[in-house]
Formats: sequence, structure tokens, C-alpha cells
Amino acid sequence: MSDVVLINPFEIDPKDEAAAIAFWERAAEHLRRQPGFVDTRLHRAIAPGARFPLINVATWRSTGAFRAATADPAFRALVGPERDRFPHHPGLYEVIRT
Amino acid sequence: MSDVVLINPFEIDPKDEAAAIAFWERAAEHLRRQPGFVDTRLHRAIAPGARFPLINVATWRSTGAFRAATADPAFRALVGPERDRFPHHPGLYEVIRT
Repeated sequence: MSDVVLINPFEIDPKDEAAAIAFWERAAEHLRRQPGFVDTRLHRAIAPGARFPLINVATWRSTGAFRAATADPAFRALVGPERDRFPHHPGLYEVIRT
Repeated sequence: MSDVVLINPFEIDPKDEAAAIAFWERAAEHLRRQPGFVDTRLHRAIAPGARFPLINVATWRSTGAFRAATADPAFRALVGPERDRFPHHPGLYEVIRT
């Protein structure tokens, strides 16, 4: 099975950026230790006023590995209290053209 | 100067997917021949109903190289007639965490 790519644009207010980065760091610290994790990169918009000030792009070995990692109660307890504070639009993707 | 990452989520209707991919191919064919282009990957959502069915992620040597390439009249003539048909949200990013 090919790797899958999680792309997660955050539609946050600029004043929440530092808190959103800290939220990402806590989530990433947990996820990078799970089976099937490949890598992750947090992107910050260069220019102010971007529609999505932060976008996470992560690679996983499979859809199943990603879903298992994020369904884990330990992960849900970690991100649950804050996830609604940072509106985001996660999706799983395959690369179809290069 | 560090590389910059263009991330461009397309908010298209599923029925327009094939046309949007063809639009991406025409744009990519032009851009990959410009100075400062590094690479590009078009991602398609694995599950139906994604907020962004297609997301382009491309790497450029600098913000200036990307802006010069996309300000080029030849590029604008190429994409101009169709760019409003496929709502998209391009932004330039730097990687701040891995």
C-alpha cells in the first residue's frame, strides 16, 4: 500500500498562532511514536493575512495506521480539550501527479 | 535563503475534478521550466466529500522566484481564463517544525 498524506489547514486567528503551534507540538510528539508514522512538517504562512496561517503535512504508511493512531483514547484525551479552539480541516490524500 | 512551499487547496465540486487536474497539469508544465522551481505534488483526497478535493504542494527556491514565475504574462495568459472556475487558496509557507 502506498503512503498517505495528511494535510491539515488551520483557519486560526493570528493571535492564537503560538497556542496552535504548542497544540501541534503536543499532538506530533504523541503521533510520531505510533506505528505507521513517517514524518510531519508544520508550515507557517510567510505573509500575514493568509486564509490558513498554519498547515500541517504529515506522511503515514497507510490510512489504517493514521486512523488507529488518532482513534487511540490517549491521543483523543491529549487533543480533545483544545481541538475546537483551532478550526482545522484535516484530510487524507494520495499523490496523483508530480 | 531557505526554500518556500506553495500550498494551494482547491475547493472544487467533485464533478470538476478532471478539469481541475487538467488545469493543474497545464500550469505545472509551464512552472516546472521556470528558474527556482524545485518540485510539485498534486494530492487528491482519498475519501469523497473532502473540503478540499485537490491540494497542490510545490517547493520553490525563494518567494521571489515563485512570484516572478507566476507574474510572467505567459503564465497568466495560460491560467487566466480558467482560474476563477476552480476556487483555490494559494499561500506561501515556510516549514517551522518537523
